[in-house]
Amino acid sequence: MTHPWFSALGLQHALIQAPMAGSQGSALAVAVGRAGALGSLPAAMLSPQTLAQELQAVAQGLAAVPWGRTAGGSLCVNVNFFCHRPPVVNAEAEAAWRTRLAGYAASWGVELQAAAGAGREPFNAAMAEVLEVHRPAVVSFHFGLPEAALLQRVKALGARVLSSATTVEEARWLQAQGVDAVVAQGLEAGGHRGLFLSEDLSGQLGTMALVPQVVRAVELPVIAAGGIADAAGVRAARALGACGVQVGTAFLLCTEAGTSAVHRTALQQAARGQGPATALTNLFSGRPARGLMNRLMTELGPINAATPAFPRAAAALQGLRAAAEAQGVADFSPLWCGQNASGCREGAAAGVVAALMQEAGGR
Amino acid sequence: MTHPWFSALGLQHALIQAPMAGSQGSALAVAVGRAGALGSLPAAMLSPQTLAQELQAVAQGLAAVPWGRTAGGSLCVNVNFFCHRPPVVNAEAEAAWRTRLAGYAASWGVELQAAAGAGREPFNAAMAEVLEVHRPAVVSFHFGLPEAALLQRVKALGARVLSSATTVEEARWLQAQGVDAVVAQGLEAGGHRGLFLSEDLSGQLGTMALVPQVVRAVELPVIAAGGIADAAGVRAARALGACGVQVGTAFLLCTEAGTSAVHRTALQQAARGQGPATALTNLFSGRPARGLMNRLMTELGPINAATPAFPRAAAALQGLRAAAEAQGVADFSPLWCGQNASGCREGAAAGVVAALMQEAGGR
Repeated sequence: MTHPWFSALGLQHALIQAPMAGSQGSALAVAVGRAGALGSLPAAMLSPQTLAQELQAVAQGLAAVPWGRTAGGSLCVNVNFFCHRPPVVNAEAEAAWRTRLAGYAASWGVELQAAAGAGREPFNAAMAEVLEVHRPAVVSFHFGLPEAALLQRVKALGARVLSSATTVEEARWLQAQGVDAVVAQGLEAGGHRGLFLSEDLSGQLGTMALVPQVVRAVELPVIAAGGIADAAGVRAARALGACGVQVGTAFLLCTEAGTSAVHRTALQQAARGQGPATALTNLFSGRPARGLMNRLMTELGPINAATPAFPRAAAALQGLRAAAEAQGVADFSPLWCGQNASGCREGAAAGVVAALMQEAGGR
Repeated sequence: MTHPWFSALGLQHALIQAPMAGSQGSALAVAVGRAGALGSLPAAMLSPQTLAQELQAVAQGLAAVPWGRTAGGSLCVNVNFFCHRPPVVNAEAEAAWRTRLAGYAASWGVELQAAAGAGREPFNAAMAEVLEVHRPAVVSFHFGLPEAALLQRVKALGARVLSSATTVEEARWLQAQGVDAVVAQGLEAGGHRGLFLSEDLSGQLGTMALVPQVVRAVELPVIAAGGIADAAGVRAARALGACGVQVGTAFLLCTEAGTSAVHRTALQQAARGQGPATALTNLFSGRPARGLMNRLMTELGPINAATPAFPRAAAALQGLRAAAEAQGVADFSPLWCGQNASGCREGAAAGVVAALMQEAGGR
């Protein structure tokens, strides 16, 4: 039996495809949704207009399956937002950072410029309006939750609200704010750490320690994330008391993902157990996120205190990254990846869903 | 059914009580052994004479149960050694470290002195002789393996050899050197990280990611360690393909453990989900190990590059630690603890064994 939290949405599988901003859009969400799991649409890097278009694409794609809409008529997809505080711009520090990158810029013939905008907007009223029109069944947040009035708007449209907890304390805080379920994001997970109550990385917990303690601490359904790459991982998460799992890395090589060429190459190596390890790095956005080691991480250190504040570090690297990627070079690109890339599969996302749910009795 | 690796030893449970140097001796090993699991005797801080006495105590304690000796007559216990390279003493750096600690020393009225010896000896011929007399069934190593000739002596006496792997690469290396099983030590684990091929902590894996990848990479039985605190954790580890588990933290409050008073107080807090988080620290020995945050870790940073080389950092703190502990103050003590202290139980160790194996069908 699928856990009620998922079956109430009409889904066959207690599986969320992790939202991966920059590496996927509606195509992957639709493919996963059609396979009976919960697809995710990362909205952190989208404008309200693009989000509306993407939600329309999901609605069209999911019209083919009876569980494309819930009994209440909501679109069976998870729309994910960041909810960081926009940074105070420190022009001097950012100029110093560009100086630090000047050697790379010179050798790639790139002019580094002050970032115009932040690049990633926190959830806001314009986005809430889009949600009110398109009514997704699930809305998830990373880096905490939006302010109470905005959260209330999301809840008022009947969406289930999720957010990530990286510590027991964060899980308790999220429960107190009224989320419907908690994603317990273990340290193994790829991409951005969801931490928001403390910036101290040394207190971040592995999935095996985090999940059972969160399950004990809150009354809510807990979804396990981090290091889960195959059916054995799904069974292990369930043994720890999770009602379902959230898996990202395993989907990054799928046909329907928008993963860049250099990122795919790095992931293919990782999936074969070759190539570099992952590390937490703040170089690519300003916040710690897990990715495969590359030249920039090696040379500047994966965590560098001089990195511009989130999300402005991304803009600082944009030109360099584009120039290098155009030559197939991954030196300046975030190669997001969890600590267990063994589940990465090329081909249709439905194959990844099937592999994860295999021997799990379709649950 | 208990996994054959354990049942061949005559044990009922696929459970190893993790060796915890400084916090336990023969009493805990005997209590766990009598309960049908594999007790461990940490030998890293013992002289050969004391090890011999401790092994005699284990032999006496286990004489009460039929599985106290294997079919081949070996003593059913795991003797654990460190096998680090003895450090090159850097007197200048150590003097600088003492200067760093001078403020603490002054306020506690302690005279900091240059360490006489290293404090922890790597496995050596004198220890091998003791093993040849007392014939333990299992010998485990931390920080890699001893040199080939010494390893050969251990294997020649019929002992099964274990060592810890913190990465897939280390597991492959251990298999190539001929160990009988691998302890996959996830980042959640308390005490010393077993890492030995690389000192890069950023590449250390959580249990959920490490265990399945090690299981896939080697042909040997894999024992999961890190974050396992209850029967759910044991089931999860088994789901990941582990043949058994190694659990340490959950035993630290047992009557038979030698855990210090300040350490017990800190663990009791942690078990209730209160008090500080854990972090990896090199302050107390010179090598990274996981313990509860305390004053020294907060004020010097848990990982400090100026810390004397392993194991000499321990001697550097000895006087301070003793003076503070005598007043019930844990500021300078290693408070080893994994990321999941929820399984800590006061009372007999047999109770912890039962709790871990509960619902696991006695396996």
